Amino acid sequence: MAGGMPKRLPTVSDVAALAGVSRQTVSNVLNSPAVVREGTRERVHTAIAELGYRPHTSARRLRTQRAATIAVRLDPVGGGISGAVLDRFLHALAERGEERGLTVMLYTAVDPDDEIRQFRRLVDAAAVDAFVLASTYHGDPRTEWLIEHDQAFVTFGRPWGIPDLTDPKHFWVDVDGRHGVREATEQLLARGARSVGFLGWPAGSGTGDERRAGWAEALRDAGFDDARSAALSIVAEEGVASGREAARALLEREPHLDALVTASDTLALGALIATGGRVPVVGFDNTPVAEAIGFSSIDQRVDEVAVAALDLLDAVGRAQSAGPSGHRLIEPRVVMRESGPLLGLLR
Amino acid sequence: MAGGMPKRLPTVSDVAALAGVSRQTVSNVLNSPAVVREGTRERVHTAIAELGYRPHTSARRLRTQRAATIAVRLDPVGGGISGAVLDRFLHALAERGEERGLTVMLYTAVDPDDEIRQFRRLVDAAAVDAFVLASTYHGDPRTEWLIEHDQAFVTFGRPWGIPDLTDPKHFWVDVDGRHGVREATEQLLARGARSVGFLGWPAGSGTGDERRAGWAEALRDAGFDDARSAALSIVAEEGVASGREAARALLEREPHLDALVTASDTLALGALIATGGRVPVVGFDNTPVAEAIGFSSIDQRVDEVAVAALDLLDAVGRAQSAGPSGHRLIEPRVVMRESGPLLGLLR
Repeated sequence: MAGGMPKRLPTVSDVAALAGVSRQTVSNVLNSPAVVREGTRERVHTAIAELGYRPHTSARRLRTQRAATIAVRLDPVGGGISGAVLDRFLHALAERGEERGLTVMLYTAVDPDDEIRQFRRLVDAAAVDAFVLASTYHGDPRTEWLIEHDQAFVTFGRPWGIPDLTDPKHFWVDVDGRHGVREATEQLLARGARSVGFLGWPAGSGTGDERRAGWAEALRDAGFDDARSAALSIVAEEGVASGREAARALLEREPHLDALVTASDTLALGALIATGGRVPVVGFDNTPVAEAIGFSSIDQRVDEVAVAALDLLDAVGRAQSAGPSGHRLIEPRVVMRESGPLLGLLR
Repeated sequence: MAGGMPKRLPTVSDVAALAGVSRQTVSNVLNSPAVVREGTRERVHTAIAELGYRPHTSARRLRTQRAATIAVRLDPVGGGISGAVLDRFLHALAERGEERGLTVMLYTAVDPDDEIRQFRRLVDAAAVDAFVLASTYHGDPRTEWLIEHDQAFVTFGRPWGIPDLTDPKHFWVDVDGRHGVREATEQLLARGARSVGFLGWPAGSGTGDERRAGWAEALRDAGFDDARSAALSIVAEEGVASGREAARALLEREPHLDALVTASDTLALGALIATGGRVPVVGFDNTPVAEAIGFSSIDQRVDEVAVAALDLLDAVGRAQSAGPSGHRLIEPRVVMRESGPLLGLLR
């Protein structure tokens, strides 16, 4: 089964880029040529010929009866503030996958055992060619099952807790949260902050530990000793109320705190409420909530994650050895917002 | 093709409700019975027997080789504040669909013609059994194509602009925005507001016109004459900045305005910024942004929408006549928030 992922085919975007027009214009040339000026039409047709672009690769699809399919789990409604990230990833996966002739199919599951039952059902029905999992952990029975049954898969998220991160059978893509938080902290220090705190999750979550490590590295590079750093750090369970309480406690202890980096937009919102917007706060995930309120945040660049995940599945299909090439670490983007429209009102 | 949609089968939720336990407990009984107390295990097994529940209906699925599949279009990343609604709808559709043995498959399209090419591809490959469209309009070539090719489909959204809303070939489910906005306006008046304004989209969008109509009805019932209502209403294109400008203009004209209902959470956020949070604002869609900031909003209840859409597809499958029974209008839920955590800080 671990085969048959198609190679990268030219896409509407490629044609648009080569012809120097928008994707919409390419679509118009294909669908309603009368609305496009002749010169533009010619440029687009030249690009199509040059790239060998075929709309929706229908010839190939008809030959193989159906498009290759990747299965993605979708959880029930109610992702809160941070659920938006996985939704954005799904959008990116659907769009980028389709450019390569892949279709995304959704399934749901209440727990890992339930998810394995779903794997079995989808595999037995020959309904999917690969799986994309949103996370994994040490001793995860799901990845064990997929490896044992020779199924192509990639995870968004490192296999936390697994000693050998370069397991050649486990392809993964992840976002380098440590790098993003370090960069955000460095930017705050460069802008004159003297006391940058960190509000993160309790130790033990791989993702959260990495984010805290990035902040600690930046402070160390700036000459803070470890005792000073420790005093500037506090933990809270994910939640607006718990983030607010922890930020209050930290501010009581450290009244001169003049910036705060957090492990999530949810914690960041709690911190903003606790500080009344007087202390710059950086969240993580750059959710619509961060954008609407106008606080800084670290963007996971899910589009890059989706492209990397599909590249890795392509490599599985071509039975390449994985090794370090079976893993991709995406650098997130720090989105600094000086003063959001709503945040400005708080001050 | 327009057949084969399975009947409603008992679900984990049904078992959980009958046994008086959580879904997680049902899953535990099925997967890790050792962690569940014996009395609880017995109650769950009794409920399973009574309902005839079969986990994931695998027997039926194996018999038919694959699950029935519904295709849903997913747009590129970047839905902003209000994009969350369609994502929540997709989650609900995946979960509720799976309870009935249906799998959701995603496709993308840049315009209606492109979407029809996708329909053709999916139909030719026998890859899907039904389509769910997120909206439609007068003369929509997509629904015309689906009807012409005898494909089962349902739309989330009324076919705006089509003279006969009860077209027996067009099944749709929609949210009664007029009802929701009327109810929100009535609640504001009942709480003592004397001058409730409306900030909506320019006339011509069916959805926006309905929302404005609900507000106008509530004012009329409360004894406002039409000239007074007209003075309390203003329009803006969808956007935070345009909403802010329009709300400012309305407040200059009507300084005694003491509440504002809007056509979207995006416009509501603009209005909140314009008023500095001094005037209660009601948005539409109850997005994570409304929840995080803490302003009131009208919830589309996408879970009910998903269930209704699946019921309608089931009716298509049984070749029932559609008529009025081919349409469902869901009543939204007004979520009044007295003072959100962040909003409280503004005052």
